Amino acid sequence: MQKQRVVSGMRPTGRLHIGHYHGVLENWIKIQEQFDCFFFVADWHSLTTEYAETSGIKGSAREMVLDWVAFGLDPSKCVVFEQSQVVQHAELNLILGMITPVSWLERNPTYKEMLDNIEQRDLSTFGFLGYPVLMAADIILYKSTRVPVGHDQLPHLEITREIARRFNHLYDCQVFPEPEALLTETPKLLGLDGRKMSKSYNNSIYLSETAEETAAKIKGMVTDTQRVRRADPGDPEQCVAFNLHRIYLPQDKQDEIIPACKNAEIGCVDCKKILTQYLNERLAPFRARREEIAQDASFVDDLLAESSRKAAQVASQTMQEVRAALRV
Amino acid sequence: MQKQRVVSGMRPTGRLHIGHYHGVLENWIKIQEQFDCFFFVADWHSLTTEYAETSGIKGSAREMVLDWVAFGLDPSKCVVFEQSQVVQHAELNLILGMITPVSWLERNPTYKEMLDNIEQRDLSTFGFLGYPVLMAADIILYKSTRVPVGHDQLPHLEITREIARRFNHLYDCQVFPEPEALLTETPKLLGLDGRKMSKSYNNSIYLSETAEETAAKIKGMVTDTQRVRRADPGDPEQCVAFNLHRIYLPQDKQDEIIPACKNAEIGCVDCKKILTQYLNERLAPFRARREEIAQDASFVDDLLAESSRKAAQVASQTMQEVRAALRV
Ligand code: SF4
Ligand code: SF4
Repeated sequence: MQKQRVVSGMRPTGRLHIGHYHGVLENWIKIQEQFDCFFFVADWHSLTTEYAETSGIKGSAREMVLDWVAFGLDPSKCVVFEQSQVVQHAELNLILGMITPVSWLERNPTYKEMLDNIEQRDLSTFGFLGYPVLMAADIILYKSTRVPVGHDQLPHLEITREIARRFNHLYDCQVFPEPEALLTETPKLLGLDGRKMSKSYNNSIYLSETAEETAAKIKGMVTDTQRVRRADPGDPEQCVAFNLHRIYLPQDKQDEIIPACKNAEIGCVDCKKILTQYLNERLAPFRARREEIAQDASFVDDLLAESSRKAAQVASQTMQEVRAALRV
Repeated sequence: MQKQRVVSGMRPTGRLHIGHYHGVLENWIKIQEQFDCFFFVADWHSLTTEYAETSGIKGSAREMVLDWVAFGLDPSKCVVFEQSQVVQHAELNLILGMITPVSWLERNPTYKEMLDNIEQRDLSTFGFLGYPVLMAADIILYKSTRVPVGHDQLPHLEITREIARRFNHLYDCQVFPEPEALLTETPKLLGLDGRKMSKSYNNSIYLSETAEETAAKIKGMVTDTQRVRRADPGDPEQCVAFNLHRIYLPQDKQDEIIPACKNAEIGCVDCKKILTQYLNERLAPFRARREEIAQDASFVDDLLAESSRKAAQVASQTMQEVRAALRV
């Protein structure tokens, strides 16, 4: 039986932090084994919000792809490519825009929310309004049948499904499957300061930083704010650092720390040293690999160029069917 | 000095009528001598309004291009190509959409007018809203400096200029010239029934019809509706047929007919025979050429494929500059 096809993209955000890793990348690494996966750098998508400041996009894409590959995406198992290098994304985007009612886009909850909330940038552009169309093009261009999404992204996938259905209906064809959700649990990782881990909050632990940098960050990390003195009992449930213990420590180690914290038998400094040790140990081989592949200055460019050609072959096949259906 | 570049397109409407000829094509034939011209079949544009019924587009494009070439566009002097064959139109369209405020599109007078007036089709699509973006892409992709437009199309050209300016400003570059209008007078040609000549009114004389078909149509053409009997005096100013006499008859012939009509010295039947003779004589060599080139079933396909490659070369050059400016 043929593997189902999965397509998923990430905007070029630069070096990934461990929140990205556990939120998205780890899942990609898992599903590359089961599915026929196409993972892409969504650089055109960056323009929907970052059109006024594009100078960082290329470098960010490079850093991100280094993380992808060093931490486990295997280009021999999946296609890792760049959206802007596969011109068929723009072509299908144009065509799908012709059949997509503006009302579908205006009712998109993310659209309304972002227009209201983001004040530093002017997002009232045609491209920003149309990003669900581009997203639909990205996905169905490869006839994806499954799309990894969290619950909050289901409305986007629904627009993609509606657009695919409308195309098939209008042109009386079955060119596009309606992709289904591959629901993924994404743990909400807290950053050093207890807010959601995010580059813009400057509270992140990066995959590619050194063990020493990580150690210093964890040293300064917020714990249980109610535990003021060493002698005070703590509560791992209320501890920011402990959200990382849960990810990086084996269960038995966690089970030791919980009562020790509650009885003030362990201090936060020592407790965080344990975390540091486990976290750094887990990341060490990947960090070493990243350093190694980063030595080759053209590694990412070469990889993206080659894989984008592979992607373009599949895309071009779909576009032939699209044109046949449209009769243009 | 280098010739200025002109870009202009026509939606694939099928066989052209003489209104198209005198309104647009005749002007193109003139300017191909003075400018570096790119003329294209705007088949993507057809989708903005005809997305629900695309089956005729390809055939219409073919008929139209036969008329273009048979009646005077010379592919050795200008580039005659098809929009959908030059993928850079879609690519630049995507990029320009990112920087175009929705408000510029919503205030476009044609947009509001068409949304209000056209009830048989649903035009509330993303693609229809964005057609001025696509039009801008079509024009500036070739760094056009002049665009042939009538007065009523000046607002469209203004959006193109604004988009070009905004791109140059945002990315601190001079990639795109702001194209200027090449104002053209377009005589409003009346059809057989006295309404504007239009395919949809079924009142047109086609460039490619036979002399006999034309003769039959002119025979049935409305003249001066006040002139009921042969003995009644007529008035060429009020005569529908006479709007064609003005185009096809030499001035001295017109000067003879005007008093003859006013004094009822000539009957409408004879008067229209004169028109038929001049019109058919003028079109005869072109009609013969059209029949000749239409013999070669692959003439249009070959021409469009070859010229679209030429266009794509120029377009690809521009896109390199666009990407360099965007740094993607
Ligand atoms: S001892 Fe550990 S779990 Fe308890 S508050 Fe300190 S860092 Fe958190
Ligand atoms: S005689 Fe000629 S110009 Fe006069 S009304 Fe008849 S067709 Fe028209």
